[in-house]
Amino acid sequence: MQGVGNDTETASTRSRLITAANEAMRARGYRGTSVKDVLAVAEAPAGSLYHHFPGGKPELAAAAVRDSGAVYGELYEAIADAAPDVATGFADFFAGATEVLAAGDFLDVCPIGTIAGEVASSDDDLRAATDDVFRAWTAAAARRLRDAGLADEDATAVATTAIAALQGGFILARARRDADLLRTVGGQVAALVTAALATVGTSR
Amino acid sequence: MQGVGNDTETASTRSRLITAANEAMRARGYRGTSVKDVLAVAEAPAGSLYHHFPGGKPELAAAAVRDSGAVYGELYEAIADAAPDVATGFADFFAGATEVLAAGDFLDVCPIGTIAGEVASSDDDLRAATDDVFRAWTAAAARRLRDAGLADEDATAVATTAIAALQGGFILARARRDADLLRTVGGQVAALVTAALATVGTSR
Repeated sequence: MQGVGNDTETASTRSRLITAANEAMRARGYRGTSVKDVLAVAEAPAGSLYHHFPGGKPELAAAAVRDSGAVYGELYEAIADAAPDVATGFADFFAGATEVLAAGDFLDVCPIGTIAGEVASSDDDLRAATDDVFRAWTAAAARRLRDAGLADEDATAVATTAIAALQGGFILARARRDADLLRTVGGQVAALVTAALATVGTSR
Repeated sequence: MQGVGNDTETASTRSRLITAANEAMRARGYRGTSVKDVLAVAEAPAGSLYHHFPGGKPELAAAAVRDSGAVYGELYEAIADAAPDVATGFADFFAGATEVLAAGDFLDVCPIGTIAGEVASSDDDLRAATDDVFRAWTAAAARRLRDAGLADEDATAVATTAIAALQGGFILARARRDADLLRTVGGQVAALVTAALATVGTSR
Protein backbone atom coordinates (compact mmCIF):
# COMPACT_ATOMS: atom_id res chain seq x y z
CA MET A 1 0.00 0.00 0.00
CA GLN A 2 2.98 2.27 -0.60
CA GLY A 3 1.88 5.80 -1.39
CA VAL A 4 -1.44 5.44 0.38
CA GLY A 5 0.03 5.54 3.89
CA ASN A 6 -0.49 3.30 6.87
CA ASP A 7 -3.86 1.95 7.97
CA THR A 8 -4.61 4.86 10.26
CA GLU A 9 -3.85 7.42 7.58
CA THR A 10 -5.92 5.44 5.07
CA ALA A 11 -8.95 5.37 7.35
CA SER A 12 -8.48 9.03 8.06
CA THR A 13 -8.37 9.95 4.35
CA ARG A 14 -11.52 7.94 3.69
CA SER A 15 -13.26 9.65 6.59
CA ARG A 16 -12.12 13.10 5.44
CA LEU A 17 -13.44 12.42 1.92
CA ILE A 18 -16.84 11.42 3.30
CA THR A 19 -17.02 14.46 5.58
CA ALA A 20 -15.99 16.83 2.77
CA ALA A 21 -18.49 15.26 0.34
CA ASN A 22 -21.27 15.52 2.91
CA GLU A 23 -20.52 19.19 3.61
CA ALA A 24 -20.36 20.03 -0.10
CA MET A 25 -23.65 18.23 -0.77
CA ARG A 26 -25.34 20.12 2.08
CA ALA A 27 -24.67 23.30 0.09
CA ARG A 28 -25.08 22.19 -3.51
CA GLY A 29 -26.63 18.73 -3.65
CA TYR A 30 -25.12 15.78 -5.49
CA ARG A 31 -24.69 17.07 -9.03
CA GLY A 32 -23.52 20.49 -7.85
CA THR A 33 -20.68 18.89 -5.90
CA SER A 34 -17.31 18.76 -7.63
CA VAL A 35 -14.93 15.90 -6.87
CA LYS A 36 -12.05 18.31 -7.29
CA ASP A 37 -13.41 20.56 -4.53
CA VAL A 38 -14.06 17.59 -2.24
CA LEU A 39 -10.47 16.39 -2.69
CA ALA A 40 -9.16 19.89 -1.95
CA VAL A 41 -11.25 20.31 1.22
CA ALA A 42 -10.30 16.80 2.39
CA GLU A 43 -6.62 17.56 1.61
CA ALA A 44 -6.57 14.21 -0.16
CA PRO A 45 -4.52 13.24 -3.21
CA ALA A 46 -6.45 12.69 -6.46
CA GLY A 47 -5.72 8.95 -6.43
CA SER A 48 -7.30 8.51 -3.02
CA LEU A 49 -10.85 8.86 -4.39
CA TYR A 50 -10.63 5.73 -6.55
CA HIS A 51 -8.52 3.95 -3.96
CA HIS A 52 -11.26 4.26 -1.34
CA PHE A 53 -14.24 4.46 -3.70
CA PRO A 54 -13.57 2.46 -6.89
CA GLY A 55 -16.99 3.55 -8.20
CA GLY A 56 -15.93 7.19 -7.99
CA LYS A 57 -18.26 10.06 -7.11
CA PRO A 58 -21.52 8.01 -6.86
CA GLU A 59 -19.86 5.54 -4.49
CA LEU A 60 -18.42 8.35 -2.36
CA ALA A 61 -21.86 10.01 -2.23
CA ALA A 62 -23.52 6.71 -1.24
CA ALA A 63 -20.99 6.28 1.57
CA ALA A 64 -21.69 9.84 2.74
CA VAL A 65 -25.44 9.17 2.64
CA ARG A 66 -25.09 5.96 4.69
CA ASP A 67 -22.69 7.66 7.10
CA SER A 68 -24.88 10.66 7.87
CA GLY A 69 -27.94 8.42 7.83
CA ALA A 70 -26.43 6.36 10.64
CA VAL A 71 -25.43 9.47 12.60
CA TYR A 72 -28.95 10.90 12.42
CA GLY A 73 -30.42 7.50 13.28
CA GLU A 74 -28.34 7.41 16.47
CA LEU A 75 -29.30 11.01 17.23
CA TYR A 76 -33.00 10.13 16.92
CA GLU A 77 -32.61 7.23 19.35
CA ALA A 78 -30.82 9.47 21.87
CA ILE A 79 -33.47 12.19 21.60
CA ALA A 80 -36.33 9.69 21.78
CA ASP A 81 -34.74 8.01 24.83
CA ALA A 82 -34.53 11.38 26.60
CA ALA A 83 -38.09 12.43 25.77
CA PRO A 84 -40.98 11.85 28.22
CA ASP A 85 -43.12 10.25 25.47
CA VAL A 86 -42.95 9.25 21.83
CA ALA A 87 -44.81 12.33 20.50
CA THR A 88 -42.44 14.66 22.34
CA GLY A 89 -39.51 12.66 20.94
CA PHE A 90 -40.59 13.59 17.41
CA ALA A 91 -41.15 17.25 18.34
CA ASP A 92 -37.74 17.38 20.02
CA PHE A 93 -36.01 15.89 16.96
CA PHE A 94 -37.59 18.53 14.71
CA ALA A 95 -36.66 21.24 17.23
CA GLY A 96 -33.04 20.10 17.16
CA ALA A 97 -33.03 20.14 13.35
CA THR A 98 -34.51 23.67 13.51
CA GLU A 99 -31.53 24.83 15.58
CA VAL A 100 -29.01 23.19 13.23
CA LEU A 101 -30.69 24.75 10.19
CA ALA A 102 -30.67 28.24 11.71
CA ALA A 103 -27.10 27.94 13.00
CA GLY A 104 -25.85 26.65 9.64
CA ASP A 105 -27.24 29.55 7.58
CA PHE A 106 -29.78 27.25 5.91
CA LEU A 107 -27.29 24.74 4.59
CA ASP A 108 -29.15 21.46 4.31
CA VAL A 109 -29.26 19.77 7.73
CA CYS A 110 -28.64 16.51 5.94
CA PRO A 111 -28.33 16.28 2.16
CA ILE A 112 -30.02 12.90 1.76
CA GLY A 113 -33.44 14.16 0.67
CA THR A 114 -32.07 16.43 -2.03
CA ILE A 115 -29.72 13.71 -3.28
CA ALA A 116 -32.63 11.24 -3.36
CA GLY A 117 -34.66 13.64 -5.48
CA GLU A 118 -31.74 14.26 -7.82
CA VAL A 119 -30.83 10.64 -8.51
CA ALA A 120 -34.08 8.66 -8.06
CA SER A 121 -34.50 8.28 -11.82
CA SER A 122 -30.86 8.21 -12.88
CA ASP A 123 -28.47 6.42 -10.47
CA ASP A 124 -29.84 3.21 -9.02
CA ASP A 125 -27.06 2.45 -6.53
CA LEU A 126 -27.21 5.90 -5.01
CA ARG A 127 -31.02 5.79 -5.02
CA ALA A 128 -30.83 2.49 -3.10
CA ALA A 129 -28.51 4.06 -0.52
CA THR A 130 -31.02 6.85 0.15
CA ASP A 131 -33.84 4.29 0.36
CA ASP A 132 -31.88 2.19 2.86
CA VAL A 133 -31.43 5.21 5.12
CA PHE A 134 -35.09 6.22 4.91
CA ARG A 135 -36.12 2.62 5.67
CA ALA A 136 -33.83 2.45 8.71
CA TRP A 137 -35.17 5.74 10.07
CA THR A 138 -38.76 4.66 9.44
CA ALA A 139 -38.16 1.33 11.20
CA ALA A 140 -36.66 3.11 14.22
CA ALA A 141 -39.58 5.53 14.50
CA ALA A 142 -42.14 2.75 13.91
CA ARG A 143 -40.59 0.66 16.68
CA ARG A 144 -41.15 3.52 19.16
CA LEU A 145 -44.75 3.88 17.97
CA ARG A 146 -45.42 0.14 18.30
CA ASP A 147 -43.92 0.21 21.79
CA ALA A 148 -46.37 3.00 22.61
CA GLY A 149 -49.29 0.85 21.44
CA LEU A 150 -49.87 1.40 17.71
CA ALA A 151 -50.55 -1.60 15.49
CA ASP A 152 -47.81 -2.50 12.98
CA GLU A 153 -49.43 -0.95 9.93
CA ASP A 154 -50.40 2.27 11.72
CA ALA A 155 -46.96 2.60 13.27
CA THR A 156 -45.31 2.29 9.86
CA ALA A 157 -47.75 4.77 8.28
CA VAL A 158 -47.22 7.39 10.99
CA ALA A 159 -43.43 6.87 10.99
CA THR A 160 -43.29 7.16 7.19
CA THR A 161 -45.29 10.39 7.38
CA ALA A 162 -42.99 11.78 10.07
CA ILE A 163 -39.90 11.12 7.91
CA ALA A 164 -41.66 12.57 4.85
CA ALA A 165 -42.67 15.68 6.81
CA LEU A 166 -39.08 16.04 8.03
CA GLN A 167 -37.61 15.79 4.53
CA GLY A 168 -40.23 18.11 3.05
CA GLY A 169 -39.83 20.42 6.04
CA PHE A 170 -36.13 20.80 5.24
CA ILE A 171 -37.07 21.77 1.68
CA LEU A 172 -39.74 24.30 2.65
CA ALA A 173 -37.72 25.84 5.50
CA ARG A 174 -34.66 26.28 3.29
CA ALA A 175 -36.75 27.69 0.44
CA ARG A 176 -38.30 30.24 2.81
CA ARG A 177 -35.13 30.77 4.86
CA ASP A 178 -37.32 30.26 7.91
CA ALA A 179 -35.99 27.59 10.26
CA ASP A 180 -39.01 27.85 12.56
CA LEU A 181 -41.14 26.36 9.79
CA LEU A 182 -39.44 23.07 10.67
CA ARG A 183 -40.40 23.42 14.35
CA THR A 184 -44.00 24.07 13.29
CA VAL A 185 -44.04 20.89 11.19
CA GLY A 186 -42.57 18.98 14.13
CA GLY A 187 -45.40 20.19 16.35
CA GLN A 188 -47.94 18.86 13.85
CA VAL A 189 -46.13 15.52 13.58
CA ALA A 190 -46.32 15.27 17.36
CA ALA A 191 -50.04 16.09 17.15
CA LEU A 192 -50.50 13.31 14.57
CA VAL A 193 -48.75 10.85 16.88
CA THR A 194 -50.85 11.94 19.84
CA ALA A 195 -54.05 11.58 17.81
CA ALA A 196 -53.05 8.10 16.59
CA LEU A 197 -52.27 6.97 20.14
CA ALA A 198 -55.53 8.45 21.45
CA THR A 199 -57.44 6.27 18.97
CA VAL A 200 -55.70 3.21 20.38
CA GLY A 201 -56.59 4.30 23.89
CA THR A 202 -60.30 4.57 23.16
CA SER A 203 -60.66 1.48 20.98
CA ARG A 204 -59.08 -0.95 23.40
CA MET B 1 -38.56 40.33 -34.38
CA GLN B 2 -37.28 38.81 -37.60
CA GLY B 3 -35.93 35.31 -37.06
CA VAL B 4 -38.01 34.73 -33.95
CA GLY B 5 -41.30 34.33 -35.81
CA ASN B 6 -44.68 35.90 -35.23
CA ASP B 7 -46.30 36.34 -31.83
CA THR B 8 -48.02 32.98 -31.86
CA GLU B 9 -44.84 31.14 -32.74
CA THR B 10 -42.95 33.10 -30.11
CA ALA B 11 -45.43 32.18 -27.39
CA SER B 12 -45.35 28.60 -28.57
CA THR B 13 -41.56 28.43 -28.44
CA ARG B 14 -41.54 29.86 -24.91
CA SER B 15 -44.17 27.36 -23.86
CA ARG B 16 -42.27 24.44 -25.44
CA LEU B 17 -39.07 25.48 -23.65
CA ILE B 18 -40.88 25.53 -20.29
CA THR B 19 -42.51 22.15 -20.92
CA ALA B 20 -39.23 20.58 -22.04
CA ALA B 21 -37.36 22.03 -19.04
CA ASN B 22 -40.03 20.78 -16.66
CA GLU B 23 -39.93 17.26 -18.11
CA ALA B 24 -36.12 17.15 -18.02
CA MET B 25 -36.06 18.36 -14.41
CA ARG B 26 -38.60 15.70 -13.41
CA ALA B 27 -35.99 13.12 -14.41
CA ARG B 28 -32.72 14.75 -13.41
CA GLY B 29 -33.38 17.80 -11.26
CA TYR B 30 -32.05 21.27 -12.00
CA ARG B 31 -28.30 20.76 -12.26
CA GLY B 32 -28.70 17.48 -14.15
CA THR B 33 -30.70 19.23 -16.86
CA SER B 34 -28.78 20.33 -19.92
CA VAL B 35 -29.90 23.42 -21.83
CA LYS B 36 -28.81 21.73 -25.04
CA ASP B 37 -31.16 18.80 -24.40
CA VAL B 38 -34.03 21.12 -23.49
CA LEU B 39 -33.56 23.07 -26.75
CA ALA B 40 -33.49 19.81 -28.73
CA VAL B 41 -36.66 18.43 -27.11
CA ALA B 42 -38.41 21.79 -27.55
CA GLU B 43 -37.23 21.92 -31.18
CA ALA B 44 -36.16 25.48 -30.45
CA PRO B 45 -33.20 27.36 -31.93
CA ALA B 46 -30.29 28.10 -29.56
CA GLY B 47 -31.01 31.84 -29.63
CA SER B 48 -34.55 31.34 -28.38
CA LEU B 49 -33.42 30.55 -24.83
CA TYR B 50 -31.91 34.00 -24.24
CA HIS B 51 -34.64 35.66 -26.29
CA HIS B 52 -37.34 34.36 -23.94
CA PHE B 53 -35.21 34.00 -20.81
CA PRO B 54 -32.44 36.64 -20.76
CA GLY B 55 -31.20 35.16 -17.46
CA GLY B 56 -30.60 31.81 -19.17
CA LYS B 57 -31.08 28.44 -17.49
CA PRO B 58 -31.98 29.72 -13.98
CA GLU B 59 -34.66 32.00 -15.42
CA LEU B 60 -36.07 29.19 -17.57
CA ALA B 61 -36.14 26.90 -14.52
CA ALA B 62 -37.86 29.57 -12.42
CA ALA B 63 -40.52 29.98 -15.13
CA ALA B 64 -41.01 26.19 -15.21
CA VAL B 65 -41.33 26.13 -11.41
CA ARG B 66 -43.93 28.91 -11.40
CA ASP B 67 -45.77 27.33 -14.32
CA SER B 68 -46.10 23.86 -12.81
CA GLY B 69 -46.73 25.43 -9.40
CA ALA B 70 -49.77 27.21 -10.84
CA VAL B 71 -51.00 24.05 -12.58
CA TYR B 72 -50.81 22.02 -9.37
CA GLY B 73 -52.42 24.85 -7.43
CA GLU B 74 -55.40 24.77 -9.80
CA LEU B 75 -55.51 20.98 -9.58
CA TYR B 76 -55.65 21.16 -5.79
CA GLU B 77 -58.58 23.60 -5.92
CA ALA B 78 -60.47 21.33 -8.34
CA ILE B 79 -59.86 18.23 -6.22
CA ALA B 80 -60.75 20.04 -2.99
CA ASP B 81 -63.95 21.42 -4.58
CA ALA B 82 -64.98 17.90 -5.59
CA ALA B 83 -64.24 16.33 -2.20
CA PRO B 84 -66.95 15.88 0.45
CA ASP B 85 -64.76 17.50 3.14
CA VAL B 86 -61.39 19.15 3.57
CA ALA B 87 -59.62 16.06 4.97
CA THR B 88 -60.77 13.95 2.03
CA GLY B 89 -59.58 16.71 -0.32
CA PHE B 90 -56.03 16.23 0.97
CA ALA B 91 -56.25 12.43 0.75
CA ASP B 92 -57.62 12.68 -2.80
CA PHE B 93 -54.80 15.00 -3.89
CA PHE B 94 -52.19 12.56 -2.56
CA ALA B 95 -54.05 9.67 -4.23
CA GLY B 96 -53.93 11.49 -7.56
CA ALA B 97 -50.21 12.14 -7.15
CA THR B 98 -49.77 8.43 -6.36
CA GLU B 99 -51.35 7.52 -9.72
CA VAL B 100 -49.19 10.02 -11.61
CA LEU B 101 -46.03 8.74 -9.92
CA ALA B 102 -46.82 5.11 -10.73
CA ALA B 103 -47.88 5.86 -14.32
CA GLY B 104 -44.75 7.97 -14.92
CA ASP B 105 -42.29 5.25 -13.86
CA PHE B 106 -41.28 7.27 -10.77
CA LEU B 107 -40.30 10.41 -12.61
CA ASP B 108 -40.80 13.25 -10.17
CA VAL B 109 -44.49 14.24 -10.14
CA CYS B 110 -43.33 17.84 -9.96
CA PRO B 111 -39.67 18.80 -9.80
CA ILE B 112 -40.08 21.80 -7.49
CA GLY B 113 -39.02 20.11 -4.27
CA THR B 114 -35.84 18.67 -5.71
CA ILE B 115 -34.97 21.98 -7.37
CA ALA B 116 -35.62 23.80 -4.08
CA GLY B 117 -33.22 21.46 -2.29
CA GLU B 118 -30.58 21.86 -4.99
CA VAL B 119 -30.55 25.65 -5.16
CA ALA B 120 -31.63 26.84 -1.69
CA SER B 121 -28.06 27.79 -0.77
CA SER B 122 -26.76 28.77 -4.21
CA ASP B 123 -29.28 30.53 -6.49
CA ASP B 124 -31.44 33.09 -4.74
CA ASP B 125 -33.81 33.94 -7.60
CA LEU B 126 -34.63 30.30 -8.25
CA ARG B 127 -34.93 29.66 -4.50
CA ALA B 128 -37.43 32.54 -4.31
CA ALA B 129 -39.47 31.01 -7.15
CA THR B 130 -39.77 27.71 -5.26
CA ASP B 131 -40.70 29.57 -2.07
CA ASP B 132 -43.40 31.55 -3.88
CA VAL B 133 -44.97 28.32 -5.12
CA PHE B 134 -44.84 26.66 -1.70
CA ARG B 135 -46.38 29.80 -0.12
CA ALA B 136 -49.22 29.86 -2.67
CA TRP B 137 -49.99 26.18 -2.10
CA THR B 138 -49.86 26.63 1.67
CA ALA B 139 -52.19 29.63 1.49
CA ALA B 140 -54.68 27.68 -0.64
CA ALA B 141 -54.70 24.72 1.75
CA ALA B 142 -54.85 27.00 4.81
CA ARG B 143 -57.86 28.81 3.37
CA ARG B 144 -59.76 25.51 3.13
CA LEU B 145 -58.81 24.66 6.72
CA ARG B 146 -59.92 28.07 8.01
CA ASP B 147 -63.20 27.68 6.15
CA ALA B 148 -63.64 24.35 7.96
CA GLY B 149 -63.15 26.04 11.31
CA LEU B 150 -59.42 26.08 12.19
CA ALA B 151 -57.90 29.23 13.66
CA ASP B 152 -55.43 31.10 11.42
CA GLU B 153 -52.26 29.84 13.06
CA ASP B 154 -53.43 26.22 13.23
CA ALA B 155 -54.64 26.31 9.63
CA THR B 156 -51.24 27.54 8.45
CA ALA B 157 -49.40 24.96 10.58
CA VAL B 158 -51.47 22.04 9.27
CA ALA B 159 -51.29 23.30 5.67
CA THR B 160 -47.51 23.73 5.90
CA THR B 161 -47.21 20.20 7.26
CA ALA B 162 -49.39 18.83 4.45
CA ILE B 163 -47.17 20.46 1.80
CA ALA B 164 -44.03 19.27 3.60
CA ALA B 165 -45.40 15.71 3.79
CA LEU B 166 -46.27 15.85 0.08
CA GLN B 167 -42.78 17.01 -0.91
CA GLY B 168 -41.08 14.53 1.40
CA GLY B 169 -43.52 11.85 0.26
CA PHE B 170 -42.37 12.36 -3.34
CA ILE B 171 -38.77 11.87 -2.20
CA LEU B 172 -39.43 8.73 -0.15
CA ALA B 173 -41.75 7.13 -2.72
CA ARG B 174 -39.28 7.71 -5.55
CA ALA B 175 -36.36 6.45 -3.44
CA ARG B 176 -38.29 3.26 -2.65
CA ARG B 177 -39.97 3.01 -6.06
CA ASP B 178 -43.21 2.52 -4.17
CA ALA B 179 -45.94 4.94 -5.25
CA ASP B 180 -48.36 3.68 -2.59
CA LEU B 181 -46.10 5.18 0.06
CA LEU B 182 -47.49 8.54 -1.11
CA ARG B 183 -51.07 7.36 -0.63
CA THR B 184 -50.17 6.21 2.88
CA VAL B 185 -48.76 9.64 3.73
CA GLY B 186 -51.91 11.25 2.30
CA GLY B 187 -54.04 9.11 4.62
CA GLN B 188 -52.05 10.34 7.61
CA VAL B 189 -52.30 13.97 6.46
CA ALA B 190 -56.08 13.49 6.28
CA ALA B 191 -55.98 12.00 9.80
CA LEU B 192 -54.04 15.05 11.02
CA VAL B 193 -56.66 17.35 9.49
CA THR B 194 -59.49 15.34 11.03
CA ALA B 195 -57.81 15.43 14.46
CA ALA B 196 -57.24 19.19 14.23
CA LEU B 197 -60.87 19.81 13.28
CA ALA B 198 -62.11 17.49 16.06
CA THR B 199 -60.27 19.66 18.59
CA VAL B 200 -62.12 22.70 17.26
CA GLY B 201 -65.39 20.82 17.54
CA THR B 202 -64.90 19.92 21.20
CA SER B 203 -63.36 23.20 22.35
CA ARG B 204 -66.05 25.46 20.98
